[in-house]
Amino acid sequence: MRAAASKIRMGFVGGGEGAFIGQAHRQAAGLDGCYELVCGAFSRDPENNRDTGIALGLPASRCYIDWQHMLAAEQALPFDQRMELLVIVTPNHLHAPIASQALQAGFHVFSEKPAALNLAEVLALEAVVSDSPGHYGLAHTYLGYPMVWQARHMVRSGVIGTLRKVIVEYPQGWLSHDAAGQGNKQAGWRDQPELSGLGGCIGDIGTHAFSLAEFVADQPIEQLCASLGIHVPGRQLDDDAAMLFKMAGGASGVLIASQVCAGEENPLKIRLYGDKGGLEWRQEEPSSLIHRSLDQPLRILRSGIGQPWLCEAALQRMRLPAGHPEGYLEAMANLYRDFAAAIGQGTEVVGVPGIEVGVRGMAFIEAVIANHRGDAKWTTLARHL
Amino acid sequence: MRAAASKIRMGFVGGGEGAFIGQAHRQAAGLDGCYELVCGAFSRDPENNRDTGIALGLPASRCYIDWQHMLAAEQALPFDQRMELLVIVTPNHLHAPIASQALQAGFHVFSEKPAALNLAEVLALEAVVSDSPGHYGLAHTYLGYPMVWQARHMVRSGVIGTLRKVIVEYPQGWLSHDAAGQGNKQAGWRDQPELSGLGGCIGDIGTHAFSLAEFVADQPIEQLCASLGIHVPGRQLDDDAAMLFKMAGGASGVLIASQVCAGEENPLKIRLYGDKGGLEWRQEEPSSLIHRSLDQPLRILRSGIGQPWLCEAALQRMRLPAGHPEGYLEAMANLYRDFAAAIGQGTEVVGVPGIEVGVRGMAFIEAVIANHRGDAKWTTLARHL
Amino acid sequence: MRAAASKIRMGFVGGGEGAFIGQAHRQAAGLDGCYELVCGAFSRDPENNRDTGIALGLPASRCYIDWQHMLAAEQALPFDQRMELLVIVTPNHLHAPIASQALQAGFHVFSEKPAALNLAEVLALEAVVSDSPGHYGLAHTYLGYPMVWQARHMVRSGVIGTLRKVIVEYPQGWLSHDAAGQGNKQAGWRDQPELSGLGGCIGDIGTHAFSLAEFVADQPIEQLCASLGIHVPGRQLDDDAAMLFKMAGGASGVLIASQVCAGEENPLKIRLYGDKGGLEWRQEEPSSLIHRSLDQPLRILRSGIGQPWLCEAALQRMRLPAGHPEGYLEAMANLYRDFAAAIGQGTEVVGVPGIEVGVRGMAFIEAVIANHRGDAKWTTLARHL
Amino acid sequence: MRAAASKIRMGFVGGGEGAFIGQAHRQAAGLDGCYELVCGAFSRDPENNRDTGIALGLPASRCYIDWQHMLAAEQALPFDQRMELLVIVTPNHLHAPIASQALQAGFHVFSEKPAALNLAEVLALEAVVSDSPGHYGLAHTYLGYPMVWQARHMVRSGVIGTLRKVIVEYPQGWLSHDAAGQGNKQAGWRDQPELSGLGGCIGDIGTHAFSLAEFVADQPIEQLCASLGIHVPGRQLDDDAAMLFKMAGGASGVLIASQVCAGEENPLKIRLYGDKGGLEWRQEEPSSLIHRSLDQPLRILRSGIGQPWLCEAALQRMRLPAGHPEGYLEAMANLYRDFAAAIGQGTEVVGVPGIEVGVRGMAFIEAVIANHRGDAKWTTLARHL
Repeated sequence: MRAAASKIRMGFVGGGEGAFIGQAHRQAAGLDGCYELVCGAFSRDPENNRDTGIALGLPASRCYIDWQHMLAAEQALPFDQRMELLVIVTPNHLHAPIASQALQAGFHVFSEKPAALNLAEVLALEAVVSDSPGHYGLAHTYLGYPMVWQARHMVRSGVIGTLRKVIVEYPQGWLSHDAAGQGNKQAGWRDQPELSGLGGCIGDIGTHAFSLAEFVADQPIEQLCASLGIHVPGRQLDDDAAMLFKMAGGASGVLIASQVCAGEENPLKIRLYGDKGGLEWRQEEPSSLIHRSLDQPLRILRSGIGQPWLCEAALQRMRLPAGHPEGYLEAMANLYRDFAAAIGQGTEVVGVPGIEVGVRGMAFIEAVIANHRGDAKWTTLARHL
Repeated sequence: MRAAASKIRMGFVGGGEGAFIGQAHRQAAGLDGCYELVCGAFSRDPENNRDTGIALGLPASRCYIDWQHMLAAEQALPFDQRMELLVIVTPNHLHAPIASQALQAGFHVFSEKPAALNLAEVLALEAVVSDSPGHYGLAHTYLGYPMVWQARHMVRSGVIGTLRKVIVEYPQGWLSHDAAGQGNKQAGWRDQPELSGLGGCIGDIGTHAFSLAEFVADQPIEQLCASLGIHVPGRQLDDDAAMLFKMAGGASGVLIASQVCAGEENPLKIRLYGDKGGLEWRQEEPSSLIHRSLDQPLRILRSGIGQPWLCEAALQRMRLPAGHPEGYLEAMANLYRDFAAAIGQGTEVVGVPGIEVGVRGMAFIEAVIANHRGDAKWTTLARHL
Repeated sequence: MRAAASKIRMGFVGGGEGAFIGQAHRQAAGLDGCYELVCGAFSRDPENNRDTGIALGLPASRCYIDWQHMLAAEQALPFDQRMELLVIVTPNHLHAPIASQALQAGFHVFSEKPAALNLAEVLALEAVVSDSPGHYGLAHTYLGYPMVWQARHMVRSGVIGTLRKVIVEYPQGWLSHDAAGQGNKQAGWRDQPELSGLGGCIGDIGTHAFSLAEFVADQPIEQLCASLGIHVPGRQLDDDAAMLFKMAGGASGVLIASQVCAGEENPLKIRLYGDKGGLEWRQEEPSSLIHRSLDQPLRILRSGIGQPWLCEAALQRMRLPAGHPEGYLEAMANLYRDFAAAIGQGTEVVGVPGIEVGVRGMAFIEAVIANHRGDAKWTTLARHL
Repeated sequence: MRAAASKIRMGFVGGGEGAFIGQAHRQAAGLDGCYELVCGAFSRDPENNRDTGIALGLPASRCYIDWQHMLAAEQALPFDQRMELLVIVTPNHLHAPIASQALQAGFHVFSEKPAALNLAEVLALEAVVSDSPGHYGLAHTYLGYPMVWQARHMVRSGVIGTLRKVIVEYPQGWLSHDAAGQGNKQAGWRDQPELSGLGGCIGDIGTHAFSLAEFVADQPIEQLCASLGIHVPGRQLDDDAAMLFKMAGGASGVLIASQVCAGEENPLKIRLYGDKGGLEWRQEEPSSLIHRSLDQPLRILRSGIGQPWLCEAALQRMRLPAGHPEGYLEAMANLYRDFAAAIGQGTEVVGVPGIEVGVRGMAFIEAVIANHRGDAKWTTLARHL
């Protein structure tokens, strides 16, 4: 909540009525009052588009029929009126094309994940990002959680010693039945390769697990051995994935991502073990970080401003005293706040996943699929396959 | 996040830099994009006041030296520019005086709790509220949690049968040491009766437990038998309270509120048992509602949009699918959203605690103190002592 | 499991087929192999008595029609054959009469709680115990849990500082309906004052909560202010109790015991807070002891042989490495093992609740009932009312 | 606890002082009073052997210098005096040789796992078992937990629908440092292939996870793709294992077993998901079984005699009312009780893992090692490799 004059002007592509993720982005962006909504192209459906604009209080003149018109029209506005940041919350296949054009038109971009549909596309986008003055941010929301930063800090500072074992899992249940066939819009496009990309579950949530593991472990996954499955008849893309992996520093690991774990909600979870101790964090109870060690009882580090045993990076991402739960929207708001700081101050973006996370995620998906389809046990996960 | 033009114009009294609760209010108000900050009198300290205004992007002309000047100046502005809603986040003793004047000046008021310092004052304020066109809301944030509404719904609809036993507890630890004596500003005024009111812990958090119990049980507490304590030397007001109580419908109960439960954060918790089952909700894990019953296994109802077993009142207060945690700011944002709806549509306020909760809380505090000081075992908790 | 020759010869009064607690005692006594069953008077019902004896492998000659015959007949046997220890698992009203006679006949006695029906009776029994060579033990099973000893140790050694607040609760749900009226035998005698004593819930489980609080806090409760209730129509004795209390060292407390908390199982729980930290233990997860403190994150001390941070008294009461759960039978077995050691070695009993716990429990019940019935707010809890 | 005359006479090989598992077996066997200890060859160390015998109350004549002497001497005793059951709690390499000889000598055998050192040996033992009149039981203790039977029942009766995903994990931390090198006796022999077998962690605990998965899922694992690791320098056998697998019914799965998960105790855990719901059970809290489903809130089924929603097989393995925790020793005691029933009544063994579980475990270990060492991605898990 800040006065309007000082805010960054923001536009949306996607996020019309009925689209959960657009609403979440607007709430997260609103939390700290750094942004003002000035325009949007919310839906291909003109009625939805118009209604969304009205509901959000936009003048009709800045509610555009599509993103191409929006980019052109906003570019034509005076500098102090036009959109500064474009938020992309469309289905996957539009992420890269829109981001490229918006960056080339001089806007900052904050995109839903994945950055692109495949590795070739994301590498092309990376070149655009690199050549553009605007910032590019990727909504890997889980990397905005303060206790994820605390875990990373503890790994990096050697609290649990040399890493030996990483277990990251993301079991969901919401695709246990044929949601797409039953008309669920969000399930629908996710199962169409041309809209969603080559990976189903592995792309949708496997990349979250993957990014979390590399972020907290602070080292890359180098090799993997994967298996994908389709458990619901009629589905085109995988709804279930699991793999063994090896990290650069010698740790072995397991990654599980599934959308047919009936009854599970969203318990993304990571455990890391070193030669001195272990850490455990679970998204459904994000304020707690469990720290086990060889020479003392289990400790639970709890989120909360002012807790002296938390690192600076974690403390900066908290808003409330201990015992006042913060959640998913606050994590996403942390990304928006850091992105606003970079835009407002004209500095480098710090604390927000960027195109490099997008590239890494695409390389991951392609490596998994290659391994799954091939005969070789292990596949090297490289930037360029 | 909505376009600025459609927002309700909001001003703050209190909430200068360093004041946690003002920041929380601004974040909660920002979440749904219904409000725009237009003015403030943030601090008695001119420097803090000015710096806060600048940080929030306000023009100097609308950053006032005190609330009296603010009310006068804003009243003089054209209707479509001036503040519509005043948020009061000062120390307790100013809540009622500012609210009264603001209401009489035609503004809506959203006040931190308590509504006033004592029963006499709150009853006077109640008269003002009743005579004013503006709305009055009270920040009993815990009543904004969706699963609290779910619990209330289940009690009201007979799921756990006739209520027999209610246990509500609020053990905190942050006043285990002499925080006030060590310079903690928020602890400081809380221990001065002229600033905080007659109750210490019983007023600060006991009223939260009390309001939660009456809200979820959907019936008043009629009699109580209480004991207060001061465990930290040098303290003037109680830091520890407990009581037995009896509810109108025959249930017996226990209320525990303490700020010397060393190491506890903010685990406000309520359990209710009827002749068919029981419910349990804990603020530190607000997405879960435990439902026990005599004839089936324990169930955990989880927050999440679209869950078919949740009541409408709960669903309306959720923003995310199951497994995406929502917390304290979302609960407060629910109050702000409902308050905005009433202001925007010119309708009655629904879903936001009002002056009646404030009156009830004051009656509670006075009854507790009277019982504690007297010889009688039971004290009747009446609207007018 | 030890060879038969080296075992203590044990007889039972009560515990016929269908009586849960007798079976539990036999299992607990069997765990460490210190006892051999040699005789019994298991039931007033001759058929049940005989069948139980057969099922337990006893010769008919040592399956007696009643306890009086058993005491007489066993006393007449040669010293190396006759029963050494009598276990009493009858309804409450027989505990003291049988214990007195058995002690006077030269046997050791291990009795279910309560020790007697009222304070007068328990004081008389205390005199018998004092004058008899045999040992007297009381099955306050919860005092056999290792982490209860660990908690007591931490309180005594000052880990949580000076005690300020104690909250002990025992909410059960199994008497939520009229179990006695529906033929539940164990519920039946519990509601008859002449068989059960003056207290219902307060005697049955309130005394467990009380004993646990005094044991772990290592100081007596001095004053209490109580309320009892009968929530199930037709019941004679209280099924719900709660009280405020004050301990000798200045701590304030709350005790809750209820048998109408529908759906609750057996979650006896204690929390203690001092000026440095707090402890929390819950019987349903007895291997964990939560330790909160002001200057470090929450720790969970876990049961397990060899854990270097556990005290000697706790370690002696564990049998398995960490992560191998031990439970109720192991806790009771700890009492049996310590009792066997005292009998076998002819030493004082250490680690087993004795008649002093029984006296204290009766004084507690009588004080609670007196306070509940009287007008005074506080009642002093004295050895002799 | 039963009278001595009616008990089964039992002898031990192994389990001298200092050996945790021998003590656990004696306690578990003692719990229900079905066995009487009559002889033993507890240790190769004569002093330990003698001291153990004395401590257990055995006459010197039945405390043998080795198992060969014990078998011979006991066989020579009159039928009504001699040992009936031999319990084997030695290091792994002796399990099969002793079991074979004991069975051939006419004794019943209850053996610690693994049944043998490798597949060839276990198949030979299987032939002996098949040709012998005596019963053979294998101490897969985790299969004695009542809620494991409940989970199996729910899978078999279709409560969670057709199985799609199984995740079983067993992360321990106790071998995070070089325990063997530091003198830990139990760690020592476990790292010597000639004493322990070809597998380290995969044999020691991986087989527990494997057996649990096949037991609860009620179908075999058909293919696996595994990776083993040695994380502690100087170790010969794997201390870390993970694999992907496919079950006969089409479910995909993940198995994790590691002994370098620093700080973990013994949280063997299984999750199974079908097209209607999921189940989750964790050994460290064995009384709870989580049941998720697509059309109702999460339920927690809790252990406890008389719970009407539990299956007969689970209820038979419980001893106490809900809320009175039972643990590891009770699970093992369930195996002993069922074994005693078969011996005592001369019937088939029901409810106790037998040689077929041993064979399956060996085939599993060999398949894992073969897969780990080879280039093929998937290895078929067959009875005969």
